[in-house]
Amino acid sequence: MKVTIERATLLKSLSHVQSVVERRNTIPILSNVLFDASEDGAIRLMATDLDLQVDESVPANVAQPGATTVSAHTLFDIVRKLPEGSQVELTAADGKMQVNAGRSRFNLSTLPRDDFPVIAEGDLPTRFELPAATLRQIIDKTRFAISSEETRYYLMGIFLHVADDQLKAAATDGHRLARVTVAKPDGADGMPDVIVPRKCVAELRKLLDEVEGTVEVSLSPTKVRFGLGSAVLTSKLIDGTFPDYNRVIPTGNDKLLKLDPKSFAQGVDRVSTIASEKTRAVKMSVDRDKITLSVTSPENGVATEEVPADYGAEGLEIGFNARYLLDILGEIDGDTVEVHLADAAAPTLLRESDKSNALYVLMPMRV
Amino acid sequence: MKVTIERATLLKSLSHVQSVVERRNTIPILSNVLFDASEDGAIRLMATDLDLQVDESVPANVAQPGATTVSAHTLFDIVRKLPEGSQVELTAADGKMQVNAGRSRFNLSTLPRDDFPVIAEGDLPTRFELPAATLRQIIDKTRFAISSEETRYYLMGIFLHVADDQLKAAATDGHRLARVTVAKPDGADGMPDVIVPRKCVAELRKLLDEVEGTVEVSLSPTKVRFGLGSAVLTSKLIDGTFPDYNRVIPTGNDKLLKLDPKSFAQGVDRVSTIASEKTRAVKMSVDRDKITLSVTSPENGVATEEVPADYGAEGLEIGFNARYLLDILGEIDGDTVEVHLADAAAPTLLRESDKSNALYVLMPMRV
Repeated sequence: MKVTIERATLLKSLSHVQSVVERRNTIPILSNVLFDASEDGAIRLMATDLDLQVDESVPANVAQPGATTVSAHTLFDIVRKLPEGSQVELTAADGKMQVNAGRSRFNLSTLPRDDFPVIAEGDLPTRFELPAATLRQIIDKTRFAISSEETRYYLMGIFLHVADDQLKAAATDGHRLARVTVAKPDGADGMPDVIVPRKCVAELRKLLDEVEGTVEVSLSPTKVRFGLGSAVLTSKLIDGTFPDYNRVIPTGNDKLLKLDPKSFAQGVDRVSTIASEKTRAVKMSVDRDKITLSVTSPENGVATEEVPADYGAEGLEIGFNARYLLDILGEIDGDTVEVHLADAAAPTLLRESDKSNALYVLMPMRV
Repeated sequence: MKVTIERATLLKSLSHVQSVVERRNTIPILSNVLFDASEDGAIRLMATDLDLQVDESVPANVAQPGATTVSAHTLFDIVRKLPEGSQVELTAADGKMQVNAGRSRFNLSTLPRDDFPVIAEGDLPTRFELPAATLRQIIDKTRFAISSEETRYYLMGIFLHVADDQLKAAATDGHRLARVTVAKPDGADGMPDVIVPRKCVAELRKLLDEVEGTVEVSLSPTKVRFGLGSAVLTSKLIDGTFPDYNRVIPTGNDKLLKLDPKSFAQGVDRVSTIASEKTRAVKMSVDRDKITLSVTSPENGVATEEVPADYGAEGLEIGFNARYLLDILGEIDGDTVEVHLADAAAPTLLRESDKSNALYVLMPMRV
């Protein structure tokens, strides 16, 4: 293999692949990125952690086709430090890869391309397209609620399914739930229910920052593939059953509180300064046309803040985890948030309005 | 105590004091900042870790003089989150401090002002002034060489002394040495040799960012005080003997290498990418009019880079710790660095030129 490629092009692609590669690997080949230079003037770069694989094609001047694998993090660090605008020459021969640019020469250890594990996609019968902006929205409005509890592995991802003729995405950690509903794309009929793992979500979101237009989604009950222009992300899906989350979305919460999400969030952020690191509990006293946020801490003292609100029902006191509340309020874009309350022990529903395609459920805390 | 103060003024001062306060304290009062409001329209804020103390006066509207102490980090976090431009009302009574701003109310626990420990300065017979810019330069060009080895506590600071009718500052960790020499200020005659501890250096450097003009330095053999306008930093000095560092500054290194410090640093940075985390060893082969930097790593491979240089003496190979070399090169401001070499095992001297007031000594590594 002998190719010449612009530093900026190589760096961008390596930044995608190196982020899939884990820092520590017991299997050496998993530290490496696969380079495959073909005669048609492109290099394919590929990285995997055996569950998630990124595969990207970049334009290059290919003098001699071929393939090899080399440490992804080391090569990324090298290319990052090369002078801007330089041309990078990559030559693989005799178990080594020579990297030349300007006055710098690196002779790096390689592992054979045949040892590089590729995720067998198998058949991916469901195929549809989603606008990149829609996929970004789905991820941004749900990912904060993904569980990080290994014992509940089936909550460690975003649940995607088709119901009521819509595509629905949900995530929950048992304390809060986020759900986004979008129009069902053509081709999604009969799609299996899938749970997309957290790491795939994170890498997909990074790639989406650089994509306009549409993303091709292909899936089977065990694998998903996202086609984003020159990059393809393939992931195993979580092998588990996502709970029937509809049961926790309250439908009878008849006390409606409306307020400005920014003032609300700032108030919660301020009073929670003195909350104990562990519980982060904030009490919310809801009265006619205002709420009073308060925190009482045995060590620090008492904090209160009033926030104007629109409320006509009976007064109520309820407690929430400040961080969970802030996560949700951070995803409300408009200048009003609707808080649908029942009582101090009942799940509370939050959304921008009844027209919003995102809704959030938050479990209260005893305060 | 009852005062009103602008958020921005209070925040700036709290940012100074909270950085002196350690995050974890077994003695509760050491977590607190002392507020002392006097009738002349100023609040004095004070914080200490028993070795280092910061004392700052800020203008405020004092309705009722008085003093109390309250958690420095908590109050800093609260004030940081208050809306920009707000007026903060602080009222101390009955063992509590009330903090009001806008719609926010905080009632914080306090500890009595009389429990607050103040460092007894004692007599500080040596007094002189230094331009803030000079003090910044002294710190910047030496602090990276301060040791962090607790067993050699006497190297854990910057050594300040008067010799050859000059004020000299030096720091070393046994592997490298940095020395800056400035004109002896009036009043420094007969000054004791002192070692200013690392934390005092760090806090002083932060405060210096906001100071123009001159800094008043007062010292005794055991204490130092830096007067920086409205802020005063007082520190205990390290009770130990700094080694006679002049012995390690080579005087007979007769092989002179001159090169561009930026190209040199970039080359070292690039080849060291593949060096093992532990040693960071870089080999430098010096030939007529060029050097070749190289690193050989059993896992990663080989890296080399040539850097043009001005050199007329006999060829030489020598090894250095890449990080130490980069620290020094980062402090060379001009477009030439002089490297005075003797042989592969001898301390090497680096400086911008013979006119520079800073010099660096670096011990070689076997490579």
